[in-house]
Amino acid sequence: MKKSLIALAVLASAGVASAQSSVTLFGIVDATLAYGKGSVANKTQLTNSGYNSSRIGFRGTEDLGGGMNASFWLEAGMNNDNGTGAATSLNNQASGTSTASAGTQGLTFNRRSTVSLGGGWGELRLGRDYTPQFWNLTVFDPFGTNGVGTSQVLNSSLGGPVTVRASNSIGYFLPGNLGGFYGQLQHYRGENASNVANDGTGSAIRLGYANGPINVALAYSSTKYSTGDIKTTNIGGQWDFAVAKLMGYYDRDQISGGATGKGGLIGALVPVGPGEIRLAYSTYKNDLAGTPKTNKWALGYVHNLSKRTAVYATYAQARNSGGAAQGLNGAITAANTNSSGYDFGVRHSF
Amino acid sequence: MKKSLIALAVLASAGVASAQSSVTLFGIVDATLAYGKGSVANKTQLTNSGYNSSRIGFRGTEDLGGGMNASFWLEAGMNNDNGTGAATSLNNQASGTSTASAGTQGLTFNRRSTVSLGGGWGELRLGRDYTPQFWNLTVFDPFGTNGVGTSQVLNSSLGGPVTVRASNSIGYFLPGNLGGFYGQLQHYRGENASNVANDGTGSAIRLGYANGPINVALAYSSTKYSTGDIKTTNIGGQWDFAVAKLMGYYDRDQISGGATGKGGLIGALVPVGPGEIRLAYSTYKNDLAGTPKTNKWALGYVHNLSKRTAVYATYAQARNSGGAAQGLNGAITAANTNSSGYDFGVRHSF
Amino acid sequence: MKKSLIALAVLASAGVASAQSSVTLFGIVDATLAYGKGSVANKTQLTNSGYNSSRIGFRGTEDLGGGMNASFWLEAGMNNDNGTGAATSLNNQASGTSTASAGTQGLTFNRRSTVSLGGGWGELRLGRDYTPQFWNLTVFDPFGTNGVGTSQVLNSSLGGPVTVRASNSIGYFLPGNLGGFYGQLQHYRGENASNVANDGTGSAIRLGYANGPINVALAYSSTKYSTGDIKTTNIGGQWDFAVAKLMGYYDRDQISGGATGKGGLIGALVPVGPGEIRLAYSTYKNDLAGTPKTNKWALGYVHNLSKRTAVYATYAQARNSGGAAQGLNGAITAANTNSSGYDFGVRHSF
Repeated sequence: MKKSLIALAVLASAGVASAQSSVTLFGIVDATLAYGKGSVANKTQLTNSGYNSSRIGFRGTEDLGGGMNASFWLEAGMNNDNGTGAATSLNNQASGTSTASAGTQGLTFNRRSTVSLGGGWGELRLGRDYTPQFWNLTVFDPFGTNGVGTSQVLNSSLGGPVTVRASNSIGYFLPGNLGGFYGQLQHYRGENASNVANDGTGSAIRLGYANGPINVALAYSSTKYSTGDIKTTNIGGQWDFAVAKLMGYYDRDQISGGATGKGGLIGALVPVGPGEIRLAYSTYKNDLAGTPKTNKWALGYVHNLSKRTAVYATYAQARNSGGAAQGLNGAITAANTNSSGYDFGVRHSF
Repeated sequence: MKKSLIALAVLASAGVASAQSSVTLFGIVDATLAYGKGSVANKTQLTNSGYNSSRIGFRGTEDLGGGMNASFWLEAGMNNDNGTGAATSLNNQASGTSTASAGTQGLTFNRRSTVSLGGGWGELRLGRDYTPQFWNLTVFDPFGTNGVGTSQVLNSSLGGPVTVRASNSIGYFLPGNLGGFYGQLQHYRGENASNVANDGTGSAIRLGYANGPINVALAYSSTKYSTGDIKTTNIGGQWDFAVAKLMGYYDRDQISGGATGKGGLIGALVPVGPGEIRLAYSTYKNDLAGTPKTNKWALGYVHNLSKRTAVYATYAQARNSGGAAQGLNGAITAANTNSSGYDFGVRHSF
Repeated sequence: MKKSLIALAVLASAGVASAQSSVTLFGIVDATLAYGKGSVANKTQLTNSGYNSSRIGFRGTEDLGGGMNASFWLEAGMNNDNGTGAATSLNNQASGTSTASAGTQGLTFNRRSTVSLGGGWGELRLGRDYTPQFWNLTVFDPFGTNGVGTSQVLNSSLGGPVTVRASNSIGYFLPGNLGGFYGQLQHYRGENASNVANDGTGSAIRLGYANGPINVALAYSSTKYSTGDIKTTNIGGQWDFAVAKLMGYYDRDQISGGATGKGGLIGALVPVGPGEIRLAYSTYKNDLAGTPKTNKWALGYVHNLSKRTAVYATYAQARNSGGAAQGLNGAITAANTNSSGYDFGVRHSF
């Protein structure tokens, strides 16, 4: 999904390259044979995104001169097992996202749709984007919040509708030349009229430091909801020991006047020839009735056939207690029973 | 949104340019911070298309030899603040357009989806396209029917479902070499079975003359609806005085056996260095109970950072009377009260 | 719609071709003026896909070395008369496909969304794809299952939701170097949990031989449905006599504990200068009450303006008996009456 295709701008019939405009078409098609086992029902699927999220997108950058640039990024999620797209959220509220009728969900730029102005001072980014509070959950997770190995912190999170992305956002990113320090601020709006309660509006910050083998970051967000404001705090880091990259994070979600959820992950990526072993243990619990808690461990292997194409396998098991009933890969499991599952798949990016 | 990218057709592995095929990928991402003020409720949004309508599209032309060509144009509207697409109309009737469930609207080629055959005799165009009766409303409007400055004629129009675009259309365009005269004919169908009333079928014509500083045009349309046929007539023009481009139009919509609406606009574009001041006054009223009427004035400035990228600001105020309650930028205002609003934004095209 | 555009991958600013990545953007825009005549109601439409199905897609291949390759194919159907996309199926069941609200159907990769690994041993393909049981119905039909001339076998088929395509499929294709023998296996899943009946899961095979003027193939499928399993068998072939290509097929669909449907087609393609005459007679009947049966003949001409652009005309007539009421091109006809229709259109591919 990295920079893979740069469409060449040419003068129409002359075939002469012109540098003034370029658009990159990019995407990932990741198909997964997935099996889930639970005490109530098992499930076998040909699904998607077991390693990386399937997507198709368009992006580009324009040099404005004087160190300034303008850029855009439009990225649509898709379910390549059946051809549907994915819904987005209009307003960062529970009411902003619906489920389309079976088979009718078209492509939306749900993953990201932004326009930016950048310069030596950083980047101003407008539109739908990832939230600062999400990044630690995926950057410091060996499974990158995809597939049967997805961290239990993301599966159970009380972080609300903007746990991963926010619509109607204005973001600011620090420039890349601060000696390893990086950071972003984001404000997103629920877009309510002034005569109703503010719902879905919030702000978030993430600050980090990456240098040599070390990368650490801290994030905090506060979002107004009509059902109780939510504050999320997380901190994560990784250390690259060359023989293995160790990583982990801690996350806490607090609903004002409601429940608190806490969780974390420890994991590792171990390079093995052209492949990589992935290993993670994650846990999340909240203080609702029974204090439901799920622990999960996952083990996987990715074999790279090229930079763009890989085959992979993952096995994971979830252990529920306190009334939790997390099933994996679509399996249904009774409260306080275990569920397990595996993925086999191929990931191709362009 | 002009011709910006021409993907180069090449022989697969040889890397040799071939002129026989080209597709242009193009688009606009326009993000707008919008505020609206009304007597009932104000609203602040991060929305889109404050200057130009956000879109993504694909188009291309093939030379058939002998002066003939074939071409296609597929253009999808999008809401880059949240990633959704926009709905289209199946049949040019009120029943042909719905609102999708929140967050689920995927991309459709709602803005235009046509295939054409062209030659020295003009162009035959088939599919979904702008109507002849729309062009005067946007070409002779300094705000181009976008953002808080959008002409009140478009906001209040009684012109029905095909005010802007029609599906199922067959169009003919005069060739470009008629000494400044231009024109188009369009027929569009509601596609009703013959045993029910014809609904959504109509015809329209637009004729104009553009030469040096002058551009004037006249349009007329007549559309059958089960709720009363609608006839629309408008005439517009502009004169480029170099220090300023003055423009305006008059529009009249008449529903058979129902209301008549009348309106118009006068405005100007004033170039200022790399930017442009925009100014417009528009009005529309109809003869329904109370004869609701809204007058609106708008003032804006666009600052071009490049040909493709601009920042802009617009302020507008609407004055309602006769029971009209036009709110701007999502504000809600009581009947006969004023509403105002502003846009700040960035427009990037590719 | 064949290989028409290969976006050239270049090093960003240097303009140097790099063979490591290519994506092909392709599509068809086919607009059709269609008229249907029936005893109850006639219909005139500006519709689409009278000659080839309108679509837009992205595909690409990566050479993995050692004779291996990876590839993807994402192809969305579209209705260019109004700009909508087309729905897909989530689970190969009747419940997996819905109709979106009017005008809201966005683009989905309903026609095909697959990722493949290939080599000297053949191709492994995962995702949504055509079924083996479909190919004979379109390859050996002069009208290719498009437009008013579409075979009555497809119109009336009892083959169920996977008659044309299946989601959640795993397919294997024989390599291309077997002396004319070709074939494919496919397994597709309904993705039901293990505690409910299996619905929409099936397997299919197609084997054929193409050499010189001859092409023959046989296909068989068996699919589990909660409403009765369906088995489909068909065999087809063509002989190219240079002055004309003769073709035909026989198809049989059997619902376990339910109806059986049988049908077939004979037809011809006759090259005439830059054009082609198309001719077909098809029939389908089932053994439900009254044994409804429809016979249909169709005559058409395609005039190629270039390899990419053609104009065409087709006339067809359907003769209903046994209670059948097949109307053509949206016409409504009473049981046991005839219906006729014609298409005029232009097909442009890119």
